[in-house]
Amino acid sequence: MAIPKVHGSPLSTATQRVLACLYEKDVEFEFVNVNMREGEHKSENFLALNPFGQVPAYQDEDLKLFESRAITRFIAQEYSDKGTQLLLQGSNKSTAVFSVWLEVEAQQFDGASSKLAWELVFKSFFGMTTDAAVVEENQAKLAKVLDVYEARLSKSKYLASDCFTLVDLHHIPNLQCLLASPVKKLIDERPHVCAWVADLTSRPSWAKVLALQKQ
Amino acid sequence: MAIPKVHGSPLSTATQRVLACLYEKDVEFEFVNVNMREGEHKSENFLALNPFGQVPAYQDEDLKLFESRAITRFIAQEYSDKGTQLLLQGSNKSTAVFSVWLEVEAQQFDGASSKLAWELVFKSFFGMTTDAAVVEENQAKLAKVLDVYEARLSKSKYLASDCFTLVDLHHIPNLQCLLASPVKKLIDERPHVCAWVADLTSRPSWAKVLALQKQ
Ligand SMILES: N[C@@H](CCC(=O)N[C@@H](CS)C(=O)NCC(=O)O)C(=O)O
Ligand SMILES: N[C@@H](CCC(=O)N[C@@H](CS)C(=O)NCC(=O)O)C(=O)O
Repeated sequence: MAIPKVHGSPLSTATQRVLACLYEKDVEFEFVNVNMREGEHKSENFLALNPFGQVPAYQDEDLKLFESRAITRFIAQEYSDKGTQLLLQGSNKSTAVFSVWLEVEAQQFDGASSKLAWELVFKSFFGMTTDAAVVEENQAKLAKVLDVYEARLSKSKYLASDCFTLVDLHHIPNLQCLLASPVKKLIDERPHVCAWVADLTSRPSWAKVLALQKQ
Repeated sequence: MAIPKVHGSPLSTATQRVLACLYEKDVEFEFVNVNMREGEHKSENFLALNPFGQVPAYQDEDLKLFESRAITRFIAQEYSDKGTQLLLQGSNKSTAVFSVWLEVEAQQFDGASSKLAWELVFKSFFGMTTDAAVVEENQAKLAKVLDVYEARLSKSKYLASDCFTLVDLHHIPNLQCLLASPVKKLIDERPHVCAWVADLTSRPSWAKVLALQKQ
């Protein structure tokens, strides 16, 4: 049986989401580096994997998937008997609460945090100039999201429940970027958020994702 | 047994997503109008339903949900034996394809189409001025998304499969807004997209959502 392939870039936060998930599930995989500087993600071969021309893409024999959160959901389901349990099992009602927090990451956290990561981390990496107005707007948005998280995390250890799930995992790549930026203060000011971020970024699965960047 | 409550506004696209789903599933519900002009969505009572202060919120006895797409998923699951089947049942692999297209709506279509709806429909409704640069940027983004949809819809009748699912349903509110704007031409230019939009917006469930606006 062939092992699944992840096509992506170790610097891409969306790719990292999928890698962290595979390491949590202890699933063997092959990493195929997509050279984004050379525009390989817009090549015909890559567009056959993801018509939107974005990394990551996932390939398991005849199954081709894209969108990082759809890939992690598939992995969590397909390998439910391996590694960390990443889904919230139970009644329709507890699954519904899990879905709410999955959506919160995607709809509330991701937009503001991705824009801040772009402005404050990636732009300087590429020698581009930060747009102060975009930073200000998204810092205000992120602060509101983190206020909700602070309240939530004072009642449960992780966002969806007392157990670590896909919801928390989906946050790690962007949180790691924010830690390397002035926006870190928004995390430090909120004790429950700060403890949660420290806990997430010290997971062994995440250390493996970071190690891949250094290869 | 109490019937579920939807708290929202008939003009809100996110609220409409949930209403369309309830009508498809033929589930009895109570609609609670949230007066957004009066800022009722930021009141303490409403924040207890959704800490982000956005409509819609869903309440079924002790269960409180927010985020429209989490609510529709719950309804589709909870009432799986009623009305239209909105989930793609089957193997993990076919569920994965369904997840991919759910994410495409949320991650690729929603951002561009919501910004265009805001600039081209809602702003003029509120007497505000359209920002031409935002329109241009998002029109280009939407055109690329619709190119992918055109290719996909030439192979299957709906986005996730040959059956109508939650994926298609999630698009309807924003598509309806775009139809009332100059961006309609992006739809008209693509025959499969155009037929799909006509099919979706003529569903009886959608007529009921529109009727609610006129009350
Ligand atoms: N919603 C997508 C986002 C993927 C994405 O934005 N990938 C970036 C790298 S992190 C990319 O490929 N950018 C190149 C482009 O958009 O052309 C996912 O979660 O997989
Ligand atoms: N991701 C949310 C978006 C909800 C949303 O943006 N609702 C709008 C109306 S369509 C709202 O309440 N806006 C007021 C605000 O954000 O303060 C969902 O899908 O439910």
